Amino acid sequence: MADSKIEEILAPLRANVKEQGDLVRKLKEEKAPELDVKKAVAELKARKKILEDKELSLAPAEELFDRAKMEDLIKRRFFYDQSFAIYGGITGQFDFGPMGCALKSNMIQLWRKYFILQEQMLEVDCSILTPEPVLKASGHVERFADLMTKDVKSGECFRLDHLIKAHLEKIKSEKNTKTELKAEIEDILVKLDGMTADEMSALMKRFDMKSPVSGNDLTPPIEFNLMFNTQIGPSGLVKGFLRPETAQGIFVNFKRLLEFNQGRLPFAAAQIGNSFRNEISPRSGLLRVREFTMCEIEHFCDSKEHPKFESVKNTQMLFYSANNQEQGKAAEIMTIGNAVSKGIVNNETLGYFMARIHLYMLAVGIDPKKLRFRQHMSNEMAHYACDCWDAECLSSYGWIECVGCADRSAYDLTQHTKATGIRLAAEKKLPSPKQIEVVEAIANKAAIGKQFKNNAKAINDALSSLEPADLELLQTKLEIEGEYILATLNGEFKMTSDLVSVKKTQKTVHVEEIIPSVIEPSFGVGRILYCILEHNFKMREGDEQRTYFSLPPTVAPMKCAVLPLSGNIEFAPFVRELSQELTNVDVSHKVDDSSGSIGRRYARTDELGVPYAITVDFDTIQEPHSVTLRERDGMGQVRLLLSEVPSVVRDLSNSKISWADVEEKYPKFEQQENVKGAAA
Amino acid sequence: MADSKIEEILAPLRANVKEQGDLVRKLKEEKAPELDVKKAVAELKARKKILEDKELSLAPAEELFDRAKMEDLIKRRFFYDQSFAIYGGITGQFDFGPMGCALKSNMIQLWRKYFILQEQMLEVDCSILTPEPVLKASGHVERFADLMTKDVKSGECFRLDHLIKAHLEKIKSEKNTKTELKAEIEDILVKLDGMTADEMSALMKRFDMKSPVSGNDLTPPIEFNLMFNTQIGPSGLVKGFLRPETAQGIFVNFKRLLEFNQGRLPFAAAQIGNSFRNEISPRSGLLRVREFTMCEIEHFCDSKEHPKFESVKNTQMLFYSANNQEQGKAAEIMTIGNAVSKGIVNNETLGYFMARIHLYMLAVGIDPKKLRFRQHMSNEMAHYACDCWDAECLSSYGWIECVGCADRSAYDLTQHTKATGIRLAAEKKLPSPKQIEVVEAIANKAAIGKQFKNNAKAINDALSSLEPADLELLQTKLEIEGEYILATLNGEFKMTSDLVSVKKTQKTVHVEEIIPSVIEPSFGVGRILYCILEHNFKMREGDEQRTYFSLPPTVAPMKCAVLPLSGNIEFAPFVRELSQELTNVDVSHKVDDSSGSIGRRYARTDELGVPYAITVDFDTIQEPHSVTLRERDGMGQVRLLLSEVPSVVRDLSNSKISWADVEEKYPKFEQQENVKGAAA
Repeated sequence: MADSKIEEILAPLRANVKEQGDLVRKLKEEKAPELDVKKAVAELKARKKILEDKELSLAPAEELFDRAKMEDLIKRRFFYDQSFAIYGGITGQFDFGPMGCALKSNMIQLWRKYFILQEQMLEVDCSILTPEPVLKASGHVERFADLMTKDVKSGECFRLDHLIKAHLEKIKSEKNTKTELKAEIEDILVKLDGMTADEMSALMKRFDMKSPVSGNDLTPPIEFNLMFNTQIGPSGLVKGFLRPETAQGIFVNFKRLLEFNQGRLPFAAAQIGNSFRNEISPRSGLLRVREFTMCEIEHFCDSKEHPKFESVKNTQMLFYSANNQEQGKAAEIMTIGNAVSKGIVNNETLGYFMARIHLYMLAVGIDPKKLRFRQHMSNEMAHYACDCWDAECLSSYGWIECVGCADRSAYDLTQHTKATGIRLAAEKKLPSPKQIEVVEAIANKAAIGKQFKNNAKAINDALSSLEPADLELLQTKLEIEGEYILATLNGEFKMTSDLVSVKKTQKTVHVEEIIPSVIEPSFGVGRILYCILEHNFKMREGDEQRTYFSLPPTVAPMKCAVLPLSGNIEFAPFVRELSQELTNVDVSHKVDDSSGSIGRRYARTDELGVPYAITVDFDTIQEPHSVTLRERDGMGQVRLLLSEVPSVVRDLSNSKISWADVEEKYPKFEQQENVKGAAA
Repeated sequence: MADSKIEEILAPLRANVKEQGDLVRKLKEEKAPELDVKKAVAELKARKKILEDKELSLAPAEELFDRAKMEDLIKRRFFYDQSFAIYGGITGQFDFGPMGCALKSNMIQLWRKYFILQEQMLEVDCSILTPEPVLKASGHVERFADLMTKDVKSGECFRLDHLIKAHLEKIKSEKNTKTELKAEIEDILVKLDGMTADEMSALMKRFDMKSPVSGNDLTPPIEFNLMFNTQIGPSGLVKGFLRPETAQGIFVNFKRLLEFNQGRLPFAAAQIGNSFRNEISPRSGLLRVREFTMCEIEHFCDSKEHPKFESVKNTQMLFYSANNQEQGKAAEIMTIGNAVSKGIVNNETLGYFMARIHLYMLAVGIDPKKLRFRQHMSNEMAHYACDCWDAECLSSYGWIECVGCADRSAYDLTQHTKATGIRLAAEKKLPSPKQIEVVEAIANKAAIGKQFKNNAKAINDALSSLEPADLELLQTKLEIEGEYILATLNGEFKMTSDLVSVKKTQKTVHVEEIIPSVIEPSFGVGRILYCILEHNFKMREGDEQRTYFSLPPTVAPMKCAVLPLSGNIEFAPFVRELSQELTNVDVSHKVDDSSGSIGRRYARTDELGVPYAITVDFDTIQEPHSVTLRERDGMGQVRLLLSEVPSVVRDLSNSKISWADVEEKYPKFEQQENVKGAAA
């Protein structure tokens, strides 16, 4: 279907979204009651969803994708599969086999190069087991708690909001439900998101909710935290969690990292590692799991300008801004330079990381047509964030968030400072020294000691920790009333001028204290890996049984296969020599000397996503020894000397040369590969 | 002290060990009572310990090592440090800072190259959260349980065997304890290792044991499992553990891996990942921790010969065989070829891996003089293992087990087969087809159905699952007595010839089923890392304040520092250019443009273990632009073109060229580095 035709169909849907977006904006400007705004936002989201579903359904036909076929290949060639399957398996947990593991490890290696090496980040490797106070400060102990309810007999669990929603929607859809009740239920459904346990409990009672599976009674609401908990040490007294993100390990090490960076801002720390979330209902394969690898960066800065922004500013990207979402407009392609200068992206540093994320995603094999940056709408964002963009990949499950890129401001460092009393801040040299006024209470310790005896210490402590406003008051009170009532840990005491005075002095300072802002790009490795597989899953023209992964050589699990044409023993020494030489130049490879036609073995290496195959045949035995080299995607072959092929494959794998270069340099090997039926 | 002098001192201690070793051997040969053997072994271990301590105390004086000084450096430059320190810290958990993390990651990268790439192993990445049945089958649920007791008031925990031992030893050492009681206590101490909870409980009562800290009463023995437990999913019904080793993830995937390897043996699978043990009392820094990274290999094979053994057989290694340990002899240097042919090492495959471990350990910087392979004595080995050697590194804590290399035979696969009913076995083609006799019970289903009605299914199931021996008996009984009593799930039933008969047929088979043996090299990354740091911690001659790590370039956290001679702004563009060019050739580096003399900044890069430093000075500004390149260990410097230096550093880092090559090719830069006081 032509683009103009598609836009014609979408136009009324876009208008619907815009209408609602305008309403939301108006309600917010008018500071309308929260409930009205929430209702309007829910309707906006629903209209956005209809628009997006329609857009996806109108996508060109060549984009059709057979998920079952890909999943079969992933399982059959053990890219990954369910963990502990011989024990019945556990949902939401996956084991990566040789191919998945190599792909993942190559993605991570490239990530290290793109971010840690090129940006000289400080990589850390912190503990997974995390004591409770750390995650209390970060907000996870509270924020990660969902409400659930249990079947009192079977113990089966239900997420409470899902259960209530399903129950009420059922009532709403029943014929003999009165119009008033239907309207009331609509109201409840909108409010559900922010309801307390008591409110939900009241709803359960009012509508007499039972288990939808067994009809048994349900327990009152139970707080269920999505973090896995355990005890650290033998006493059972130290409560710990498996970290739900790697970021906190960086924040609690901020002081050490700042010191390592010789006290200077900006700097970025990064961490690659596993995190854990005890999902109530894991689903969609690698997209929602209980155990996953993340790559996270925390860029600490005191200015949002970025010295290297210039180098990326012409990167073309697809932006789906909050404004476009509210207005029912499509995502737009523009350069990151324009997006920042127009104020669509909040600042250069955020923009710089978004561009780097974009370039990394393309390098690992994400289809640029299926990658967009979607801005969080103001109602989606955490209260402390000032801007947040998700890199989303289009998959058969819809648009999937793969990388988050948030400006978290100073939230986390402030929280840990509050919880520990240790100031997580940097010092910045002032452009020129500054005079400041220092106000302090000068205690007459001798007099206080004499008058208050055992309470003297508490009084002195209280005096020295008075805030500027209190000191102001102390001074005024002493001057005007001649006394001041001081609150201490041991109770209140009357202070008079003979016991304490207030002194103001001028001090020259050369530095100011700064709690840096944090820009946080956070990568979900498993989700990106899944999208790479979808974007690179191909079928050979003319034989849809013959499927393969067109993975870029940089991330392909193995770079090369070595195939003797047949089981002829004369081929063996050449195969051994090739394997040794490839190892010497660090090229991962697989020798496939199993029986089966060469075509069938090519098909197998294609399924594994191996980009190159070297074949040893009867001409190899003749001097000068030569082999054929085949490229996976186009199935073209060239003939070259055996001694040359290892370095050629290495250079191809490192993207130092292209296949076109190779085809130009070496003679084409003409032997038609019979595609049809080879994968049988 | 001369070696001969040392041996003179050690001789009587060696004789003591030998005497006891001979006694143990004699007792075993005579099949003496277990208690006597245990007592003799305990005494043998005590004598070995005295010998080893003496040997260590006589080590040459230049080996003296200042641990406090090294730990200060590790902390100060954030190689690693206690986790969550700002929250008071947790014992047994460490965070790796930028330098420790890079060192660890380089060690792992080299491990991948040495093992996975060179041996074409199948790398997997499996779940950390493991459901209980898996770890029941592996024996961890039972084997990992230590007994402990708690102070009833304070909740303080004590490992029960340690508590009993300390209590009894105290009684034994008291003056007025009778000789008989002393002898009895000695007996108890020897038996303690294998006592049940009830036996220990009885001892606690008999000797009226209280908390050694508070004097409070103690709880009865409590089983304390060293695995961290949690619940998987919201119901709280699926009990799970954090894996205590990565190996089980490989075993449960055996079938998928075998299939990936096209059904063929041998093959090796490998996994790099974190494991967890809830140690009761973590200590000794990285040596005993609660969370650690392992690299494990499971090599599955049906023959213990190894095709590549030839390539390593001349590797010289230090062997401390079980026999030498029992005989009080020192460890011996020999080639792995000799060790295998003499039967000291059980087989070629085990020997091949030991040699590869040895070579890897040297490559990452372990001092060959401080590396030995110690064989487990028969009483140390797990009952299923047929040979086991630990690669031990000498550190200031004594000899530390860093890599285990065990022949686990078919134990694990057999256990998981039993637990799941899924046969974890390979099929091997027989050299020629074989005739085998198949014996089966032929049930007359109609007659059974008619006679036994509802019980017919249970009877048919029981008949079809009879073992060969049962079938033999069934046939005999039917022939001689005319009846056979069959046990089924529904009780016993009388079988007669009209209901069942036994049929023997000949069958031609082409394959046999094999449960492969497993050779398991298992690397503790943190322990190796710690030993690398100790073995490479050096002080400059003439200034013991100036310490550094002489890490091999391959594993050094960064390869290179870029230092402008001063803050002169003319240097800046050259520093930027160098940094960019180094990044382009993948050389990790650090720009240090902080103030401080060049000597001071050299000292800082030395502390970080950075092997090379490039200095930009006033001559750099002149054409042709040149820089100095300095090597850390010898502090020699050469002058070369700025354009050449990135590739020279890359080749040095990859060990493609040596520093000697560089010194030969480029002119020496003569400027005495002032060592004294530079580290201030």
